Amino acid sequence: LVTVLGAGSWGSALGVLLANGGHAVRMWDADRAVLRDIRLNRRNARYLRDAELPESMDSADELPEALRGATLVVIAIPAAGVSDACGRAGSHIPADVSVVSATKGLCPVTGRRMSEVISDCAGVAAERVVALSGPNLALEVCAGVPTATVVSGPSRERMEEALRYFSGPRFRVYTNPDTVGVELGGALKNVIAIGAGINDGLGFGDNTKATVLTRGLAEMTRLGTALGARAETFRGLAGLGDLIATSVSAKSRNYRVGLGLGRGRALAEVLADLGQVAEGVSSAQAVLRVAAEQGVDVPICRAVHDVLFGGLDPREAVAGLMSREPKDEIEECAVALGNTGAARG
Amino acid sequence: LVTVLGAGSWGSALGVLLANGGHAVRMWDADRAVLRDIRLNRRNARYLRDAELPESMDSADELPEALRGATLVVIAIPAAGVSDACGRAGSHIPADVSVVSATKGLCPVTGRRMSEVISDCAGVAAERVVALSGPNLALEVCAGVPTATVVSGPSRERMEEALRYFSGPRFRVYTNPDTVGVELGGALKNVIAIGAGINDGLGFGDNTKATVLTRGLAEMTRLGTALGARAETFRGLAGLGDLIATSVSAKSRNYRVGLGLGRGRALAEVLADLGQVAEGVSSAQAVLRVAAEQGVDVPICRAVHDVLFGGLDPREAVAGLMSREPKDEIEECAVALGNTGAARG
Repeated sequence: LVTVLGAGSWGSALGVLLANGGHAVRMWDADRAVLRDIRLNRRNARYLRDAELPESMDSADELPEALRGATLVVIAIPAAGVSDACGRAGSHIPADVSVVSATKGLCPVTGRRMSEVISDCAGVAAERVVALSGPNLALEVCAGVPTATVVSGPSRERMEEALRYFSGPRFRVYTNPDTVGVELGGALKNVIAIGAGINDGLGFGDNTKATVLTRGLAEMTRLGTALGARAETFRGLAGLGDLIATSVSAKSRNYRVGLGLGRGRALAEVLADLGQVAEGVSSAQAVLRVAAEQGVDVPICRAVHDVLFGGLDPREAVAGLMSREPKDEIEECAVALGNTGAARG
Repeated sequence: LVTVLGAGSWGSALGVLLANGGHAVRMWDADRAVLRDIRLNRRNARYLRDAELPESMDSADELPEALRGATLVVIAIPAAGVSDACGRAGSHIPADVSVVSATKGLCPVTGRRMSEVISDCAGVAAERVVALSGPNLALEVCAGVPTATVVSGPSRERMEEALRYFSGPRFRVYTNPDTVGVELGGALKNVIAIGAGINDGLGFGDNTKATVLTRGLAEMTRLGTALGARAETFRGLAGLGDLIATSVSAKSRNYRVGLGLGRGRALAEVLADLGQVAEGVSSAQAVLRVAAEQGVDVPICRAVHDVLFGGLDPREAVAGLMSREPKDEIEECAVALGNTGAARG
């Protein structure tokens, strides 16, 4: 039995994936209407539109019941709710079972990564927590579109266990021991994707967008390596891959938030229409705090933050990013990559 | 006076950019109907749709007349035609004038880079040749969408001269001394972009596409560094930036070739509809030859090549790319990046 905490689009898509892979799956969420829809109608109309759910997927309203007998626990709750849910779930998580974090975000209060929050708040040893992240639009995973992802944790056994649970003919799982990088990739790309959406909402072109994403990846890498991640991880599926998927797809919530802002709509209105959490909105605040602590310059995240919360005009934000002084690109890259000393070919 | 050889969409867009920047511009092309359209109608209906051309842009039918008095020569001819045109133009290029290569491709016969072909065939010292490459969809540059690009050459003076010619409020120019990387980025990304188009034509999703592009950049970097390029260049505008712009935009010819193939159309039919050269088609052959010489594995370029010329079914090509054995992502990245020894953060 796999228990999935969080029956939004991503948690439910992972539930469908696991159920189709032969596992019994039990969903839990704070929203009981969604759980009832799953149990009674074999649907999650709110988050997965008209997908029919597998027979082996059910739900439970209470955490103790949801977690009883679980051999794997997956957490796919919005970042802002993870500490609370884990505090309540922790004592019910069976001993020694692995916990997979599928939440892409940072704690809005402390800026900490989700695996850290889960370990602390659920009282689960850090060794048991595995992060799962990659270019994984939920609706596509649910529809069985060929997809690749990355699992990462401090223990190879736990990573390989997660790999076995999730792997399937249309879901390829890679391992990467750099958990800091894998988790930061998933959190930071949402902020950059809001920027990509702003670009498109303003009617700027693909040339501009490609430049924003190129510099966005350099910015993610710069902050990530300052926090202990490996630069290579940001060039992989959990970094660049997820950045691209999130920034080019109308299925991406963070992209759509930016798109609405770029078209001149107010944040509250855009979020109300979305009807779901866009992690990049709260991540933007956490990212700025962490970057300031590290003394790392994050001009794109700052611009997105200032559009979201500081009244910055979206057009000025993008124009500002495109109008820095001309200079040597390699020097800029070298700074961006933290002078990792990559050899000349 | 700037002379632009090649009045296709990219040459003409650069001509418009230079003319709007205050330069007199003279266009030359093998197609005299286009030159006449420019002279008489102030249009290039075939390649730039309904854009009105600046007063300071004219054209000349003959190379000696086109090149007389030029203070800068720009070459934007399809790769397959560069050696011939340069052979004819060479003796008419004024002494000591810089030659900017805006062609993104490789010589289909030798696999050599355009700056090498230009220098040899025009009899111009290598020191005078500068490459210009980046995420630069021609129609967007012509429309004045904010755009960034990279110039590269063996001499800092020549790079800065090109920077001054092309820079404008909506066209930011960066310098990068790694000419091998800048030119290979522009050539290799066209092949990967055909793969991205195939993915979309098949109806595969953004998850798959993001994975193909992530691995595509690793593949570009692997081959490029084997040929003497710097890995950082592929993470910059002329690598990742151009890869994104070309792979997500319906304005990209190479992407559209892939899109048609993915939808099951024949190559000849797709190219006939395009009515313009898609450089990735001939580059795919040159890339495979060069990769074989270097002993570098290029699975995406090979799959694209085999769809183009070997009768490989597009669906099998993408499925094959997505179904390699699960393994550790960092190891794969390390191989992909040629073990450049990037430091752990």
